[in-house]
Amino acid sequence: MNAPYRPTLTRAGRPATYSVEALNERGEALATPIAGEHPLTLYVDKREVVTLMTLGQAPECLAIGYLRNQRLVDSIDAIAAVQVDWETDSVAVTTRKGVKGLGAKMKKRTVTTGCGQGTVFGDLMEEIDAVRLRDDVRLTEETLYSLLDAVRRHETIYKAAGAVHGCALATNAPGASEILSFVEDVGRHNAVDAIAGQMWLEGIDGSDKIFYTTGRLTSEMVIKATQMRIPFLVSRSGLTKMGHEIATRVGITMIGRAVNRHYLLFTGKHRFVKTTMPTALA
Amino acid sequence: MNAPYRPTLTRAGRPATYSVEALNERGEALATPIAGEHPLTLYVDKREVVTLMTLGQAPECLAIGYLRNQRLVDSIDAIAAVQVDWETDSVAVTTRKGVKGLGAKMKKRTVTTGCGQGTVFGDLMEEIDAVRLRDDVRLTEETLYSLLDAVRRHETIYKAAGAVHGCALATNAPGASEILSFVEDVGRHNAVDAIAGQMWLEGIDGSDKIFYTTGRLTSEMVIKATQMRIPFLVSRSGLTKMGHEIATRVGITMIGRAVNRHYLLFTGKHRFVKTTMPTALA
Repeated sequence: MNAPYRPTLTRAGRPATYSVEALNERGEALATPIAGEHPLTLYVDKREVVTLMTLGQAPECLAIGYLRNQRLVDSIDAIAAVQVDWETDSVAVTTRKGVKGLGAKMKKRTVTTGCGQGTVFGDLMEEIDAVRLRDDVRLTEETLYSLLDAVRRHETIYKAAGAVHGCALATNAPGASEILSFVEDVGRHNAVDAIAGQMWLEGIDGSDKIFYTTGRLTSEMVIKATQMRIPFLVSRSGLTKMGHEIATRVGITMIGRAVNRHYLLFTGKHRFVKTTMPTALA
Repeated sequence: MNAPYRPTLTRAGRPATYSVEALNERGEALATPIAGEHPLTLYVDKREVVTLMTLGQAPECLAIGYLRNQRLVDSIDAIAAVQVDWETDSVAVTTRKGVKGLGAKMKKRTVTTGCGQGTVFGDLMEEIDAVRLRDDVRLTEETLYSLLDAVRRHETIYKAAGAVHGCALATNAPGASEILSFVEDVGRHNAVDAIAGQMWLEGIDGSDKIFYTTGRLTSEMVIKATQMRIPFLVSRSGLTKMGHEIATRVGITMIGRAVNRHYLLFTGKHRFVKTTMPTALA
Protein backbone atom coordinates (compact mmCIF):
# COMPACT_ATOMS: atom_id res chain seq x y z
CA MET A 1 0.00 0.00 0.00
CA ASN A 2 1.38 3.43 -0.87
CA ALA A 3 1.80 5.80 2.02
CA PRO A 4 -1.62 7.48 2.05
CA TYR A 5 -2.11 11.23 2.04
CA ARG A 6 -2.35 12.63 5.57
CA PRO A 7 -3.75 16.02 6.51
CA THR A 8 -2.03 18.10 9.16
CA LEU A 9 -3.13 16.63 12.48
CA THR A 10 -2.93 17.39 16.15
CA ARG A 11 -2.52 14.43 18.50
CA ALA A 12 -4.75 15.61 21.30
CA GLY A 13 -6.21 12.52 22.95
CA ARG A 14 -7.59 13.01 26.45
CA PRO A 15 -6.99 10.79 29.47
CA ALA A 16 -9.46 7.89 29.21
CA THR A 17 -10.37 7.61 32.86
CA TYR A 18 -10.60 9.84 35.90
CA SER A 19 -10.96 8.91 39.55
CA VAL A 20 -13.83 9.99 41.77
CA GLU A 21 -14.81 8.94 45.28
CA ALA A 22 -17.85 6.79 45.90
CA LEU A 23 -19.37 5.10 48.94
CA ASN A 24 -20.15 1.43 48.51
CA GLU A 25 -22.74 -0.68 50.33
CA ARG A 26 -20.28 -1.33 53.14
CA GLY A 27 -19.91 2.39 53.68
CA GLU A 28 -16.37 2.35 52.34
CA ALA A 29 -15.12 5.37 50.40
CA LEU A 30 -13.62 4.03 47.17
CA ALA A 31 -11.56 5.83 44.55
CA THR A 32 -13.53 4.80 41.47
CA PRO A 33 -12.31 5.13 37.89
CA ILE A 34 -14.87 6.70 35.56
CA ALA A 35 -14.81 7.23 31.82
CA GLY A 36 -13.99 10.67 30.46
CA GLU A 37 -16.66 12.60 28.60
CA HIS A 38 -15.96 15.89 26.90
CA PRO A 39 -17.92 18.11 24.55
CA LEU A 40 -16.11 18.55 21.26
CA THR A 41 -17.51 21.09 18.82
CA LEU A 42 -16.69 20.34 15.21
CA TYR A 43 -16.05 23.25 12.86
CA VAL A 44 -15.60 22.80 9.12
CA ASP A 45 -13.91 25.80 7.50
CA LYS A 46 -14.90 27.85 10.56
CA ARG A 47 -18.54 26.77 10.34
CA GLU A 48 -20.00 24.98 13.35
CA VAL A 49 -21.33 21.56 12.40
CA VAL A 50 -22.05 19.63 15.60
CA THR A 51 -21.01 19.15 19.19
CA LEU A 52 -20.13 15.58 20.05
CA MET A 53 -19.78 14.19 23.54
CA THR A 54 -16.71 12.03 23.46
CA LEU A 55 -14.25 10.13 25.56
CA GLY A 56 -11.67 12.06 23.57
CA GLN A 57 -9.38 9.10 22.93
CA ALA A 58 -8.98 9.80 19.20
CA PRO A 59 -10.62 13.18 18.52
CA GLU A 60 -8.93 13.74 15.15
CA CYS A 61 -10.06 10.35 13.84
CA LEU A 62 -13.52 11.01 15.27
CA ALA A 63 -13.82 14.33 13.43
CA ILE A 64 -12.66 12.81 10.14
CA GLY A 65 -14.86 9.74 10.54
CA TYR A 66 -17.88 11.85 11.43
CA LEU A 67 -17.44 13.89 8.25
CA ARG A 68 -16.94 10.66 6.30
CA ASN A 69 -19.98 8.85 7.68
CA GLN A 70 -22.16 11.94 7.40
CA ARG A 71 -21.08 12.24 3.78
CA LEU A 72 -19.97 15.81 4.37
CA VAL A 73 -16.54 15.06 2.91
CA ASP A 74 -15.93 12.69 -0.02
CA SER A 75 -12.34 11.70 0.61
CA ILE A 76 -9.45 12.21 3.00
CA ASP A 77 -7.71 14.19 0.25
CA ALA A 78 -10.30 16.93 0.67
CA ILE A 79 -9.12 17.58 4.23
CA ALA A 80 -6.15 19.91 4.69
CA ALA A 81 -5.97 20.00 8.48
CA VAL A 82 -7.65 18.68 11.63
CA GLN A 83 -6.80 20.64 14.74
CA VAL A 84 -8.16 19.79 18.17
CA ASP A 85 -8.01 22.42 20.92
CA TRP A 86 -9.25 21.25 24.30
CA GLU A 87 -8.91 24.77 25.68
CA THR A 88 -12.01 25.57 23.65
CA ASP A 89 -13.31 21.98 23.37
CA SER A 90 -13.22 22.31 19.61
CA VAL A 91 -11.87 20.58 16.54
CA ALA A 92 -11.29 22.73 13.49
CA VAL A 93 -11.32 20.91 10.16
CA THR A 94 -9.96 22.86 7.21
CA THR A 95 -10.87 21.59 3.77
CA ARG A 96 -8.91 22.29 0.63
CA LYS A 97 -11.78 23.45 -1.52
CA GLY A 98 -14.66 23.86 0.90
CA VAL A 99 -17.73 21.63 1.23
CA LYS A 100 -20.47 22.08 -1.36
CA GLY A 101 -23.95 22.46 0.11
CA LEU A 102 -22.77 22.01 3.71
CA GLY A 103 -25.81 23.85 5.02
CA ALA A 104 -28.24 21.69 3.08
CA LYS A 105 -26.45 18.51 4.11
CA MET A 106 -26.66 19.57 7.75
CA LYS A 107 -30.29 20.54 7.58
CA LYS A 108 -32.21 17.29 7.72
CA ARG A 109 -31.32 14.87 10.45
CA THR A 110 -32.41 11.46 11.57
CA VAL A 111 -31.90 10.32 15.11
CA THR A 112 -31.06 6.71 14.42
CA THR A 113 -31.62 4.29 17.25
CA GLY A 114 -32.62 7.26 19.37
CA CYS A 115 -28.96 8.10 19.11
CA GLY A 116 -28.47 9.74 15.78
CA GLN A 117 -25.74 11.81 14.37
CA GLY A 118 -27.87 13.58 11.85
CA THR A 119 -27.79 11.02 9.11
CA VAL A 120 -30.39 11.39 6.40
CA PHE A 121 -31.87 7.94 6.56
CA GLY A 122 -33.62 7.84 3.20
CA ASP A 123 -30.57 8.99 1.28
CA LEU A 124 -28.44 6.57 3.26
CA MET A 125 -30.61 3.63 2.25
CA GLU A 126 -30.33 4.56 -1.41
CA GLU A 127 -26.58 4.66 -1.02
CA ILE A 128 -26.57 1.38 0.88
CA ASP A 129 -28.55 -0.35 -1.85
CA ALA A 130 -25.83 0.61 -4.30
CA VAL A 131 -23.12 -1.06 -2.23
CA ARG A 132 -21.94 -4.50 -3.28
CA LEU A 133 -20.04 -6.20 -0.48
CA ARG A 134 -17.35 -8.63 -1.59
CA ASP A 135 -18.60 -12.18 -2.01
CA ASP A 136 -15.22 -13.78 -2.60
CA VAL A 137 -14.19 -13.56 1.05
CA ARG A 138 -14.93 -16.08 3.77
CA LEU A 139 -14.81 -16.05 7.56
CA THR A 140 -14.09 -19.35 9.27
CA GLU A 141 -15.40 -20.21 12.70
CA GLU A 142 -11.79 -20.66 13.80
CA THR A 143 -10.96 -17.11 12.72
CA LEU A 144 -14.06 -15.82 14.49
CA TYR A 145 -12.93 -17.52 17.70
CA SER A 146 -9.44 -16.05 17.32
CA LEU A 147 -11.01 -12.59 17.01
CA LEU A 148 -13.08 -13.14 20.14
CA ASP A 149 -9.92 -14.26 21.96
CA ALA A 150 -8.08 -11.13 20.78
CA VAL A 151 -10.94 -8.91 21.93
CA ARG A 152 -11.02 -10.63 25.31
CA ARG A 153 -7.29 -10.13 25.78
CA HIS A 154 -7.45 -6.50 24.68
CA GLU A 155 -6.97 -4.03 27.54
CA THR A 156 -10.03 -1.84 27.62
CA ILE A 157 -11.29 1.27 29.32
CA TYR A 158 -14.53 -0.66 29.75
CA LYS A 159 -12.83 -3.12 32.07
CA ALA A 160 -11.52 -0.23 34.15
CA ALA A 161 -14.45 2.17 34.17
CA GLY A 162 -17.35 0.77 32.19
CA ALA A 163 -19.72 3.25 30.57
CA VAL A 164 -18.10 3.01 27.14
CA HIS A 165 -18.72 1.09 23.94
CA GLY A 166 -15.90 -0.47 21.97
CA CYS A 167 -15.42 -1.09 18.28
CA ALA A 168 -12.60 -2.95 16.57
CA LEU A 169 -11.42 -3.33 13.01
CA ALA A 170 -9.71 -6.69 12.58
CA THR A 171 -8.02 -8.72 9.87
CA ASN A 172 -9.49 -11.92 8.55
CA ALA A 173 -6.19 -13.82 8.77
CA PRO A 174 -7.11 -17.54 8.87
CA GLY A 175 -7.31 -18.69 12.47
CA ALA A 176 -5.43 -15.61 13.69
CA SER A 177 -7.51 -12.48 13.36
CA GLU A 178 -5.53 -9.40 14.35
CA ILE A 179 -6.99 -6.20 15.76
CA LEU A 180 -5.87 -3.26 13.59
CA SER A 181 -7.77 -0.65 15.53
CA PHE A 182 -9.73 -0.65 18.77
CA VAL A 183 -11.61 2.49 19.76
CA GLU A 184 -13.82 3.05 22.75
CA ASP A 185 -16.12 5.99 23.36
CA VAL A 186 -19.07 7.02 25.48
CA GLY A 187 -21.19 6.68 22.36
CA ARG A 188 -20.67 3.69 20.09
CA HIS A 189 -21.43 5.98 17.15
CA ASN A 190 -18.31 7.91 17.99
CA ALA A 191 -16.30 4.71 18.25
CA VAL A 192 -17.35 3.50 14.80
CA ASP A 193 -16.82 6.97 13.32
CA ALA A 194 -13.33 7.15 14.82
CA ILE A 195 -12.49 3.84 13.18
CA ALA A 196 -13.88 5.11 9.86
CA GLY A 197 -11.63 8.14 10.24
CA GLN A 198 -8.59 6.04 11.03
CA MET A 199 -9.28 3.82 8.00
CA TRP A 200 -9.17 6.91 5.81
CA LEU A 201 -6.01 8.16 7.50
CA GLU A 202 -4.22 4.84 7.19
CA GLY A 203 -5.64 4.06 3.75
CA ILE A 204 -7.16 0.81 5.04
CA ASP A 205 -9.50 -1.08 2.70
CA GLY A 206 -12.42 -2.58 4.63
CA SER A 207 -13.57 -5.01 1.96
CA ASP A 208 -11.89 -8.07 3.53
CA LYS A 209 -11.97 -6.98 7.18
CA ILE A 210 -14.05 -7.82 10.22
CA PHE A 211 -15.85 -5.13 12.20
CA TYR A 212 -16.43 -5.97 15.86
CA THR A 213 -18.58 -4.01 18.26
CA THR A 214 -19.52 -4.47 21.89
CA GLY A 215 -22.74 -2.65 21.09
CA ARG A 216 -26.03 -3.72 19.62
CA LEU A 217 -26.47 -4.44 15.94
CA THR A 218 -28.91 -1.67 15.12
CA SER A 219 -29.74 -0.25 11.72
CA GLU A 220 -27.07 2.38 12.15
CA MET A 221 -24.27 -0.12 12.86
CA VAL A 222 -25.18 -2.23 9.83
CA ILE A 223 -25.38 0.88 7.64
CA LYS A 224 -22.00 2.18 8.79
CA ALA A 225 -20.28 -1.19 8.35
CA THR A 226 -21.75 -1.38 4.85
CA GLN A 227 -20.64 2.17 4.07
CA MET A 228 -17.12 1.06 5.01
CA ARG A 229 -17.51 -1.92 2.62
CA ILE A 230 -16.88 -4.35 5.50
CA PRO A 231 -18.49 -7.77 4.80
CA PHE A 232 -18.22 -9.18 8.34
CA LEU A 233 -20.01 -7.61 11.31
CA VAL A 234 -19.60 -9.23 14.73
CA SER A 235 -21.12 -8.18 18.04
CA ARG A 236 -21.10 -9.37 21.61
CA SER A 237 -24.66 -8.10 21.87
CA GLY A 238 -28.00 -8.72 20.21
CA LEU A 239 -29.60 -7.07 17.24
CA THR A 240 -32.72 -5.19 16.28
CA LYS A 241 -35.36 -5.91 13.67
CA MET A 242 -34.22 -3.10 11.42
CA GLY A 243 -30.59 -4.09 11.83
CA HIS A 244 -31.60 -7.57 10.70
CA GLU A 245 -33.66 -6.27 7.78
CA ILE A 246 -30.89 -4.04 6.46
CA ALA A 247 -28.28 -6.77 6.98
CA THR A 248 -30.45 -9.14 4.95
CA ARG A 249 -30.94 -6.49 2.26
CA VAL A 250 -27.20 -5.77 1.86
CA GLY A 251 -26.16 -9.38 2.43
CA ILE A 252 -23.61 -8.56 5.11
CA THR A 253 -22.43 -11.50 7.22
CA MET A 254 -23.76 -10.59 10.64
CA ILE A 255 -22.95 -12.50 13.81
CA GLY A 256 -24.39 -11.61 17.21
CA ARG A 257 -24.03 -12.84 20.79
CA ALA A 258 -20.42 -13.67 19.98
CA VAL A 259 -18.60 -14.48 23.23
CA ASN A 260 -15.97 -17.13 23.87
CA ARG A 261 -17.13 -20.15 21.83
CA HIS A 262 -20.70 -19.04 21.32
CA TYR A 263 -22.29 -17.04 18.54
CA LEU A 264 -25.42 -16.65 16.47
CA LEU A 265 -25.02 -16.32 12.69
CA PHE A 266 -27.93 -14.26 11.42
CA THR A 267 -27.30 -13.18 7.84
CA GLY A 268 -24.82 -13.58 4.98
CA LYS A 269 -24.34 -17.25 5.87
CA HIS A 270 -22.68 -17.92 2.50
CA ARG A 271 -19.51 -16.13 3.67
CA PHE A 272 -19.22 -18.13 6.88
CA VAL A 273 -17.31 -21.42 6.99
CA LYS A 274 -18.08 -23.66 9.93
CA THR A 275 -15.04 -25.61 11.02
CA THR A 276 -15.53 -29.18 12.07
CA MET A 277 -14.68 -29.22 15.75
CA PRO A 278 -15.32 -25.93 17.54
CA THR A 279 -15.15 -27.74 20.87
CA ALA A 280 -11.57 -28.74 20.07
CA LEU A 281 -10.77 -25.02 20.09
CA ALA A 282 -12.57 -24.40 23.33
CA MET B 1 -54.28 14.64 42.13
CA ASN B 2 -56.89 16.04 39.73
CA ALA B 3 -57.41 14.06 36.55
CA PRO B 4 -54.87 15.73 34.26
CA TYR B 5 -55.66 17.10 30.82
CA ARG B 6 -55.12 14.51 28.11
CA PRO B 7 -54.73 15.25 24.42
CA THR B 8 -56.39 13.01 21.85
CA LEU B 9 -54.16 9.96 21.58
CA THR B 10 -53.77 6.89 19.44
CA ARG B 11 -52.66 3.70 21.20
CA ALA B 12 -50.38 2.35 18.53
CA GLY B 13 -47.66 0.37 20.26
CA ARG B 14 -45.77 -2.13 18.11
CA PRO B 15 -44.91 -5.72 19.01
CA ALA B 16 -41.77 -5.59 21.13
CA THR B 17 -40.03 -8.61 19.68
CA TYR B 18 -39.88 -10.51 16.43
CA SER B 19 -38.44 -13.93 15.68
CA VAL B 20 -35.68 -14.61 13.19
CA GLU B 21 -33.66 -17.72 12.48
CA ALA B 22 -30.02 -17.96 13.46
CA LEU B 23 -27.39 -20.69 13.38
CA ASN B 24 -25.56 -21.26 16.63
CA GLU B 25 -22.08 -22.70 17.17
CA ARG B 26 -23.51 -26.21 17.17
CA GLY B 27 -24.95 -25.59 13.71
CA GLU B 28 -28.49 -25.59 15.08
CA ALA B 29 -31.06 -23.30 13.49
CA LEU B 30 -32.70 -21.38 16.32
CA ALA B 31 -35.77 -19.16 16.25
CA THR B 32 -34.29 -16.11 17.98
CA PRO B 33 -36.31 -13.24 19.41
CA ILE B 34 -35.00 -9.82 18.39
CA ALA B 35 -36.08 -6.36 19.46
CA GLY B 36 -38.25 -4.30 17.16
CA GLU B 37 -36.84 -1.13 15.62
CA HIS B 38 -38.94 1.20 13.55
CA PRO B 39 -38.38 4.66 12.10
CA LEU B 40 -40.92 7.12 13.45
CA THR B 41 -41.02 10.56 11.88
CA LEU B 42 -42.33 13.25 14.20
CA TYR B 43 -44.40 16.06 12.71
CA VAL B 44 -45.50 19.06 14.73
CA ASP B 45 -48.41 20.91 13.10
CA LYS B 46 -47.49 19.20 9.81
CA ARG B 47 -43.86 20.26 10.08
CA GLU B 48 -41.25 17.49 10.12
CA VAL B 49 -39.11 17.67 13.24
CA VAL B 50 -37.09 14.46 13.48
CA THR B 51 -37.08 10.76 12.69
CA LEU B 52 -36.52 8.55 15.70
CA MET B 53 -35.61 4.88 15.58
CA THR B 54 -37.74 3.25 18.21
CA LEU B 55 -38.92 -0.06 19.57
CA GLY B 56 -42.36 1.47 19.22
CA GLN B 57 -43.62 0.33 22.61
CA ALA B 58 -45.03 3.72 23.61
CA PRO B 59 -44.81 5.97 20.53
CA GLU B 60 -47.30 8.57 21.77
CA CYS B 61 -45.43 9.01 25.06
CA LEU B 62 -42.16 9.11 23.13
CA ALA B 63 -43.38 11.91 20.88
CA ILE B 64 -44.69 13.94 23.82
CA GLY B 65 -41.56 13.34 25.90
CA TYR B 66 -39.29 14.23 22.99
CA LEU B 67 -41.08 17.55 22.57
CA ARG B 68 -40.90 18.07 26.35
CA ASN B 69 -37.21 17.27 26.71
CA GLN B 70 -36.29 19.23 23.61
CA ARG B 71 -38.21 22.18 25.06
CA LEU B 72 -40.26 22.47 21.90
CA VAL B 73 -43.50 22.38 23.90
CA ASP B 74 -43.92 23.99 27.33
CA SER B 75 -46.75 21.92 28.75
CA ILE B 76 -49.04 19.01 27.96
CA ASP B 77 -51.89 21.51 27.71
CA ALA B 78 -50.33 22.91 24.53
CA ILE B 79 -50.83 19.56 22.77
CA ALA B 80 -54.21 18.92 21.17
CA ALA B 81 -53.56 15.53 19.59
CA VAL B 82 -50.88 12.87 19.12
CA GLN B 83 -51.61 10.47 16.30
CA VAL B 84 -49.32 7.61 15.35
CA ASP B 85 -49.71 5.99 11.94
CA TRP B 86 -47.43 3.02 11.33
CA GLU B 87 -48.58 2.84 7.71
CA THR B 88 -46.47 5.92 7.16
CA ASP B 89 -44.15 5.44 10.17
CA SER B 90 -45.20 8.85 11.42
CA VAL B 91 -46.53 10.54 14.51
CA ALA B 92 -48.47 13.76 13.97
CA VAL B 93 -48.58 16.12 16.93
CA THR B 94 -51.13 18.91 16.68
CA THR B 95 -50.65 21.84 19.03
CA ARG B 96 -53.39 24.19 20.12
CA LYS B 97 -51.60 27.43 19.33
CA GLY B 98 -48.55 26.37 17.33
CA VAL B 99 -44.93 26.40 18.52
CA LYS B 100 -43.15 29.73 18.60
CA GLY B 101 -39.76 29.72 16.88
CA LEU B 102 -39.88 26.00 16.05
CA GLY B 103 -37.41 26.46 13.23
CA ALA B 104 -34.90 28.28 15.41
CA LYS B 105 -35.27 25.72 18.19
CA MET B 106 -34.63 22.92 15.71
CA LYS B 107 -31.66 24.60 14.13
CA LYS B 108 -28.81 24.06 16.54
CA ARG B 109 -28.21 20.57 17.77
CA THR B 110 -25.82 18.86 20.09
CA VAL B 111 -25.12 15.18 19.80
CA THR B 112 -24.82 14.35 23.45
CA THR B 113 -22.90 11.23 24.36
CA GLY B 114 -22.45 10.62 20.67
CA CYS B 115 -26.14 9.92 20.82
CA GLY B 116 -27.88 13.23 20.77
CA GLN B 117 -31.38 14.24 20.12
CA GLY B 118 -30.51 17.73 19.09
CA THR B 119 -30.41 19.32 22.49
CA VAL B 120 -28.75 22.69 22.69
CA PHE B 121 -26.22 21.93 25.35
CA GLY B 122 -25.33 25.46 26.41
CA ASP B 123 -28.93 26.52 26.85
CA LEU B 124 -29.65 23.27 28.65
CA MET B 125 -26.91 23.92 31.19
CA GLU B 126 -28.31 27.38 31.92
CA GLU B 127 -31.70 25.82 32.50
CA ILE B 128 -30.20 23.06 34.63
CA ASP B 129 -28.41 25.58 36.84
CA ALA B 130 -31.79 27.16 37.58
CA VAL B 131 -33.26 23.86 38.81
CA ARG B 132 -33.44 23.29 42.56
CA LEU B 133 -33.99 19.64 43.36
CA ARG B 134 -35.89 18.95 46.56
CA ASP B 135 -33.67 18.58 49.60
CA ASP B 136 -36.40 17.46 52.01
CA VAL B 137 -36.61 13.95 50.55
CA ARG B 138 -34.49 10.96 51.52
CA LEU B 139 -33.76 7.58 49.97
CA THR B 140 -32.96 4.75 52.37
CA GLU B 141 -30.70 1.87 51.43
CA GLU B 142 -33.62 -0.44 52.17
CA THR B 143 -35.79 1.38 49.65
CA LEU B 144 -32.98 1.27 47.09
CA TYR B 145 -32.74 -2.50 47.55
CA SER B 146 -36.51 -2.85 47.16
CA LEU B 147 -36.28 -0.93 43.88
CA LEU B 148 -33.50 -3.19 42.63
CA ASP B 149 -35.63 -6.23 43.57
CA ALA B 150 -38.60 -4.77 41.70
CA VAL B 151 -36.47 -4.12 38.64
CA ARG B 152 -35.06 -7.65 38.77
CA ARG B 153 -38.56 -9.15 38.96
CA HIS B 154 -39.86 -6.95 36.15
CA GLU B 155 -40.46 -8.84 32.90
CA THR B 156 -38.37 -7.17 30.26
CA ILE B 157 -37.85 -7.23 26.54
CA TYR B 158 -34.14 -7.15 27.36
CA LYS B 159 -34.39 -10.58 28.98
CA ALA B 160 -36.09 -11.92 25.86
CA ALA B 161 -34.20 -10.19 23.08
CA GLY B 162 -31.49 -7.93 24.48
CA ALA B 163 -30.52 -4.90 22.40
CA VAL B 164 -32.68 -2.48 24.38
CA HIS B 165 -32.19 -0.05 27.23
CA GLY B 166 -34.68 0.24 30.05
CA CYS B 167 -35.75 3.14 32.21
CA ALA B 168 -38.10 3.11 35.17
CA LEU B 169 -39.86 5.74 37.22
CA ALA B 170 -40.40 4.47 40.75
CA THR B 171 -41.90 5.66 44.01
CA ASN B 172 -39.78 6.28 47.08
CA ALA B 173 -42.12 4.36 49.40
CA PRO B 174 -40.05 3.37 52.47
CA GLY B 175 -38.69 -0.12 51.97
CA ALA B 176 -41.15 -0.84 49.16
CA SER B 177 -40.35 1.16 46.06
CA GLU B 178 -42.97 0.64 43.35
CA ILE B 179 -42.37 0.92 39.61
CA LEU B 180 -44.84 3.42 38.14
CA SER B 181 -43.52 3.18 34.62
CA PHE B 182 -41.00 0.96 32.87
CA VAL B 183 -40.10 1.73 29.28
CA GLU B 184 -37.58 0.00 27.07
CA ASP B 185 -36.32 1.18 23.73
CA VAL B 186 -33.48 0.62 21.29
CA GLY B 187 -32.11 3.98 22.39
CA ARG B 188 -32.11 4.83 26.08
CA HIS B 189 -32.82 8.44 25.09
CA ASN B 190 -36.14 7.28 23.72
CA ALA B 191 -36.86 5.35 26.89
CA VAL B 192 -36.27 8.37 29.12
CA ASP B 193 -38.23 10.62 26.77
CA ALA B 194 -41.15 8.20 26.77
CA ILE B 195 -41.20 8.29 30.57
CA ALA B 196 -41.08 12.10 30.49
CA GLY B 197 -44.06 12.00 28.14
CA GLN B 198 -45.98 9.61 30.35
CA MET B 199 -45.29 11.80 33.39
CA TRP B 200 -46.91 14.70 31.56
CA LEU B 201 -49.84 12.56 30.46
CA GLU B 202 -50.46 11.17 33.94
CA GLY B 203 -49.66 14.43 35.72
CA ILE B 204 -46.90 12.75 37.73
CA ASP B 205 -44.67 14.97 39.85
CA GLY B 206 -41.07 13.77 39.75
CA SER B 207 -39.80 15.72 42.74
CA ASP B 208 -39.96 12.77 45.17
CA LYS B 209 -39.44 9.93 42.70
CA ILE B 210 -36.57 7.64 41.76
CA PHE B 211 -35.37 7.35 38.18
CA TYR B 212 -33.75 4.04 37.30
CA THR B 213 -31.89 3.28 34.10
CA THR B 214 -30.06 0.22 32.83
CA GLY B 215 -27.88 2.59 30.82
CA ARG B 216 -24.84 4.62 31.66
CA LEU B 217 -25.02 7.81 33.68
CA THR B 218 -23.87 10.24 31.02
CA SER B 219 -24.33 13.99 30.96
CA GLU B 220 -27.56 13.56 29.05
CA MET B 221 -29.14 11.21 31.58
CA VAL B 222 -28.29 13.50 34.48
CA ILE B 223 -29.62 16.52 32.59
CA LYS B 224 -32.89 14.80 31.71
CA ALA B 225 -33.46 13.51 35.26
CA THR B 226 -32.83 17.04 36.52
CA GLN B 227 -35.20 18.52 33.95
CA MET B 228 -37.84 16.17 35.32
CA ARG B 229 -37.04 17.42 38.86
CA ILE B 230 -36.19 13.90 39.98
CA PRO B 231 -33.74 13.93 42.93
CA PHE B 232 -32.72 10.26 42.81
CA LEU B 233 -30.93 8.74 39.81
CA VAL B 234 -30.01 5.05 39.95
CA SER B 235 -28.23 2.96 37.33
CA ARG B 236 -27.06 -0.60 36.95
CA SER B 237 -24.15 0.77 34.92
CA GLY B 238 -21.27 3.14 35.40
CA LEU B 239 -20.98 6.85 34.81
CA THR B 240 -18.97 9.34 32.82
CA LYS B 241 -16.88 12.27 33.95
CA MET B 242 -19.35 14.81 32.65
CA GLY B 243 -22.27 12.92 34.14
CA HIS B 244 -20.46 13.12 37.46
CA GLU B 245 -19.63 16.82 37.04
CA ILE B 246 -23.20 17.79 36.22
CA ALA B 247 -24.59 15.58 39.00
CA THR B 248 -22.27 17.33 41.45
CA ARG B 249 -23.30 20.73 40.08
CA VAL B 250 -27.04 20.09 40.44
CA GLY B 251 -26.68 18.06 43.64
CA ILE B 252 -28.70 15.11 42.40
CA THR B 253 -28.36 11.89 44.39
CA MET B 254 -26.66 9.60 41.89
CA ILE B 255 -26.06 5.91 42.48
CA GLY B 256 -24.26 3.66 39.99
CA ARG B 257 -23.40 -0.04 39.71
CA ALA B 258 -26.62 -0.78 41.56
CA VAL B 259 -27.29 -4.52 41.34
CA ASN B 260 -28.70 -6.83 44.02
CA ARG B 261 -27.10 -5.63 47.26
CA HIS B 262 -24.29 -3.63 45.70
CA TYR B 263 -24.12 0.02 44.72
CA LEU B 264 -21.83 3.03 44.52
CA LEU B 265 -23.15 6.34 45.86
CA PHE B 266 -21.46 9.11 43.90
CA THR B 267 -23.20 12.41 44.54
CA GLY B 268 -25.96 13.99 46.62
CA LYS B 269 -24.99 11.84 49.61
CA HIS B 270 -27.05 14.06 51.94
CA ARG B 271 -30.29 12.54 50.59
CA PHE B 272 -29.18 8.95 51.11
CA VAL B 273 -29.81 7.16 54.40
CA LYS B 274 -27.71 4.08 55.01
CA THR B 275 -29.62 1.51 57.00
CA THR B 276 -27.74 -0.34 59.68
CA MET B 277 -27.53 -3.91 58.41
CA PRO B 278 -27.51 -4.20 54.62
CA THR B 279 -26.22 -7.77 54.95
CA ALA B 280 -29.35 -8.66 56.87
CA LEU B 281 -31.27 -7.78 53.74
CA ALA B 282 -29.04 -9.80 51.47
